[in-house]
Amino acid sequence: KKSNQPTFSRRGMTLEEEINESNEYYLVNNQAVIYKKPTPIQIVSVDYPKRSRAVIKEAYFRQASTTDYNGVYRGYYVDFEAKETKNKLSFPLKNFHQHQIEHFKRCLLQDGICFVIIKFSTMNRYFVTPASLIIANFEHDDDQKSIKLTTIEEASIELSIGYRPTIPYLDAVDQLIKNKGIKTNNDR
Amino acid sequence: KKSNQPTFSRRGMTLEEEINESNEYYLVNNQAVIYKKPTPIQIVSVDYPKRSRAVIKEAYFRQASTTDYNGVYRGYYVDFEAKETKNKLSFPLKNFHQHQIEHFKRCLLQDGICFVIIKFSTMNRYFVTPASLIIANFEHDDDQKSIKLTTIEEASIELSIGYRPTIPYLDAVDQLIKNKGIKTNNDR
Ligand SMILES: [Mg+2]
Ligand SMILES: [Mg+2]
Repeated sequence: KKSNQPTFSRRGMTLEEEINESNEYYLVNNQAVIYKKPTPIQIVSVDYPKRSRAVIKEAYFRQASTTDYNGVYRGYYVDFEAKETKNKLSFPLKNFHQHQIEHFKRCLLQDGICFVIIKFSTMNRYFVTPASLIIANFEHDDDQKSIKLTTIEEASIELSIGYRPTIPYLDAVDQLIKNKGIKTNNDR
Repeated sequence: KKSNQPTFSRRGMTLEEEINESNEYYLVNNQAVIYKKPTPIQIVSVDYPKRSRAVIKEAYFRQASTTDYNGVYRGYYVDFEAKETKNKLSFPLKNFHQHQIEHFKRCLLQDGICFVIIKFSTMNRYFVTPASLIIANFEHDDDQKSIKLTTIEEASIELSIGYRPTIPYLDAVDQLIKNKGIKTNNDR
């Protein structure tokens, strides 16, 4: 089932592909150095054939203990997770794990810039949502954890999707950095 | 062949194990959030047995395009490579790849804190060496690329090996950050 999206070339790209493409653009233009972390894999057996490269014969996917992406931008440490949902009215938190929330908290304590890029794929809307909103909502005792779209709209920076980079999320990161500066000046 | 090292509990630990242990210490003490990046793996075939988790049946190691470790410390992006040598008089650069050097350059351009932790295992000496020294020497046209120990000594911060953390390299990072500040003030 495909929705009638107004976009052209990105039709069918996953959020991860869109972000990887954006990171490649930022990398070659010396704007930031941000990579997706490889999926951690537990290797059980490896063959070393003669005159040929090693072949992994048995291995398992391990759960990542951190987030999807990290890197450096203008001297700032940037750390984020990418999440896509087909929901129209809320963003479900069930795909977050406790250790990812802990990771966000630890990075915030070290003054990292932490957020989630949320794609509402049915509506083709993208948000850069501060990690603090996710943390606060994750720790509610609700059975059905989710954040209302209206709350996401209020607390996030919505992205206008471009051509190059596909997802210009560093514009939103500039805003997060600016807000952080204001907050620091008032609070300390 | 083992050398008679004066140390006790770390006997036989690789540099990577020592750094991982140090990172764990820094993590649980909220001093920094630094992880080893998983080795990238190219997956060719996966089995999905019923009632059991997915098994990777064929996969290959890919060459990492970046460095071993990255993370955040006191708001700074930290990025480094760990290298061990049995040499006594020089540090060979043959284990660095062009793309790792490029990665260092890009991260430096974004104001990251970039370095190599070098272990001279025969002498049990550890250095935090700024990436700039590696970059400068890597680009020489020598057949046998290496950096003399005396040069390493001059340009690096030598680490005194402790008990907790095993390798207290953040002390050296503090120094790199301080030096960077001084340099910036003079140069700009
Ligand atoms: Mg994700
Ligand atoms: Mg290494």
